[in-house]
Amino acid sequence: MKHPTIRDIPGGITAAKAIRASGVFCGIKKAKLDLALVVSDRPATVAGVTTVNRVKAAPVLLCERQLKAGRFSAAVANSGNANACTGPQGARDAEAMRDRLARLIGRPASEVFVASTGVIGRRLPISKVLTGIPEAFRVLSPKGGKASAQAIMTTDTYPKEAAVSFELEGKRVVIGGMAKGSGMIAPNLATMLCFVGTDAAVPAALLRRTLRPAVRHTFNAITVDGCMSTNDTVLLFANGGAGAPPLRAGTSNLAVFEEALHRVLSGLARLIAKDGEGATKLIRVAVRGSRTANDARLAATAVANSPLVKTAFFGEDCNWGRIMAALGGSGVRFDPAHVDILLDGIAVVRRGIGLGEEKERRAGVRMRRPEFTLTIDLHGGGGEAAILTSDLSEEYVRINAGYRS
Amino acid sequence: MKHPTIRDIPGGITAAKAIRASGVFCGIKKAKLDLALVVSDRPATVAGVTTVNRVKAAPVLLCERQLKAGRFSAAVANSGNANACTGPQGARDAEAMRDRLARLIGRPASEVFVASTGVIGRRLPISKVLTGIPEAFRVLSPKGGKASAQAIMTTDTYPKEAAVSFELEGKRVVIGGMAKGSGMIAPNLATMLCFVGTDAAVPAALLRRTLRPAVRHTFNAITVDGCMSTNDTVLLFANGGAGAPPLRAGTSNLAVFEEALHRVLSGLARLIAKDGEGATKLIRVAVRGSRTANDARLAATAVANSPLVKTAFFGEDCNWGRIMAALGGSGVRFDPAHVDILLDGIAVVRRGIGLGEEKERRAGVRMRRPEFTLTIDLHGGGGEAAILTSDLSEEYVRINAGYRS
Repeated sequence: MKHPTIRDIPGGITAAKAIRASGVFCGIKKAKLDLALVVSDRPATVAGVTTVNRVKAAPVLLCERQLKAGRFSAAVANSGNANACTGPQGARDAEAMRDRLARLIGRPASEVFVASTGVIGRRLPISKVLTGIPEAFRVLSPKGGKASAQAIMTTDTYPKEAAVSFELEGKRVVIGGMAKGSGMIAPNLATMLCFVGTDAAVPAALLRRTLRPAVRHTFNAITVDGCMSTNDTVLLFANGGAGAPPLRAGTSNLAVFEEALHRVLSGLARLIAKDGEGATKLIRVAVRGSRTANDARLAATAVANSPLVKTAFFGEDCNWGRIMAALGGSGVRFDPAHVDILLDGIAVVRRGIGLGEEKERRAGVRMRRPEFTLTIDLHGGGGEAAILTSDLSEEYVRINAGYRS
Repeated sequence: MKHPTIRDIPGGITAAKAIRASGVFCGIKKAKLDLALVVSDRPATVAGVTTVNRVKAAPVLLCERQLKAGRFSAAVANSGNANACTGPQGARDAEAMRDRLARLIGRPASEVFVASTGVIGRRLPISKVLTGIPEAFRVLSPKGGKASAQAIMTTDTYPKEAAVSFELEGKRVVIGGMAKGSGMIAPNLATMLCFVGTDAAVPAALLRRTLRPAVRHTFNAITVDGCMSTNDTVLLFANGGAGAPPLRAGTSNLAVFEEALHRVLSGLARLIAKDGEGATKLIRVAVRGSRTANDARLAATAVANSPLVKTAFFGEDCNWGRIMAALGGSGVRFDPAHVDILLDGIAVVRRGIGLGEEKERRAGVRMRRPEFTLTIDLHGGGGEAAILTSDLSEEYVRINAGYRS
């Protein structure tokens, strides 16, 4: 369902019209950008998806309350501190961030969103943040996308941006976004933070209906370590700056918008999986032939999260026995004697039996590539699903054993 | 419920009367013992618990069939090859091992059990095994427990044995066992292989009823990497060699036997968790105050399996935010604002809020110990459970990235 008019373009959150952003250093981290602003110069609609973790950070709870009204003017996000497990003080700190930015832009506080990412359980150094917000406000720019993408990074090794443009009723419309990922990435909202802005005009209710399925097939289809974050937030806002007519349900224009949005989110999701902590490879685990799509998803997730499978990916060893064991432990019903396993198209298992060491050796050569696909066919139905994952390296342990020190 | 007459004694599977064992090198591995025999010189009853993985190794399927009759004379186990995902050929190979040993001891094949552990998906080098069985038979000895425990090791760094003795009606009764563990260890039968023999006399049906709960609270309460094996097998046989009267349901004698069995299994389970691949620490994750015991078990397992928590254990960093995040993602219902977290009795979180860096530093000092306890109180009910786990080190990745090469 590729649409001819959708084109990848450079840039991120500020790629669309009437959006400015900035990233500054306010002193939470040691010497890296740690505070990002995103401002829509036109009032916008907004939709969001947040973590399903029972432990939610203060800014997440604030977002959830404000998303109901569906109006957006700006967002402020910090890295280096998650403002999670911080109790009533954390809630007050998140509100203080919001109120400071709302005053600066002269808009209602209910239109200003807050996000945080970093260490859980420490109070936000709020005076540094409140000093940083006006500084970040002063340097807001239509070219500030990259700096804001850098300012939300934690253990990410590069900023993550994606943008597309397409035509709607003769107008050029853009969707652009940024994300940060790296650790605590699991299929149930694997993102930590993501902001996407578009100059299309989309009513809030329609924006919500569009965002959910797009997230399901992108951010909810990647995993790094199977750990669910307390701070995951995806915000999508639409400010109508392109001048195209508002999108309506059931139209072909909406279908184009949906495809374009999927393209941006899937680009960002892919960047997150590829930049998983310590990752040296990006692996697509595709399961087909399960009884249902949900079974395929469960099976793919079990394989993608298995430390034994992931270390074998890292070791470039086509140890398909571990894949079989992970499938068998996934809770999904299938007949082991019907399973085929292929690595980048090279069959290593047919009907549950290995095809020999020569095939495994050839598959192992493919595993030296930075990206490859593991295909599992259960031959038991029409269900299919795919999960993007990374390998598990010694570097993951080094990063996470010493993260706070 | 400590019973005064139950005493830990040296030895393992051959500690009880009328049991001989041996471990030899038959050529599956490079230069290590890889074939173990266990023979009861008196016909015995037997009970077993096997993996719930949907993908079961050939010897596991064979065991499951034979366990129904409940009679035991001997067992043969090899390491270095799991004989899993090997199809009909694998089934024939397992039967050939069984039949060879049955002929040597002159007992029905249905009383001879087979177990395998090692790499999945390669055909067993059956001629080496069939040559090794008579050699192992020749060196069977009442002192062969240690050698047999060595012969079932894979990535284990030491053999695992435990034994106890107690009095029953004036007779000295012994229960002794051996196990191998190390990788693919998850709460749902975390053992790979375990053989336990006793000279008590126990009807097969009663032996089964005794084994299940004992496994639930020992082998099913440890985790190393959350990966479920295709080969997990626990066999418990009772040959009556002590001369005590047969145990009967509902008696105090049975209660003593149950406690003694629990002691042996929990000793072996502890050795497995402590020797987890790359493990540097043994951690008891105890959850209380959940709505149900099952909730406590789910919550403890989520924490014990979280790679972020386990790397923080390795890094001796009391990063309780990751513990909160793992709890929140466990699917268990609780109020984050009620959670207490203690490390070896040092409170670091009260009512969901951190108690500060000084407490964390003190807890971090405790984490340098080879063993410590993480206690989580959800203050939401009477459920409780504990899981033993290990930390996640770079060595785990090194072992598993290169296991087959």
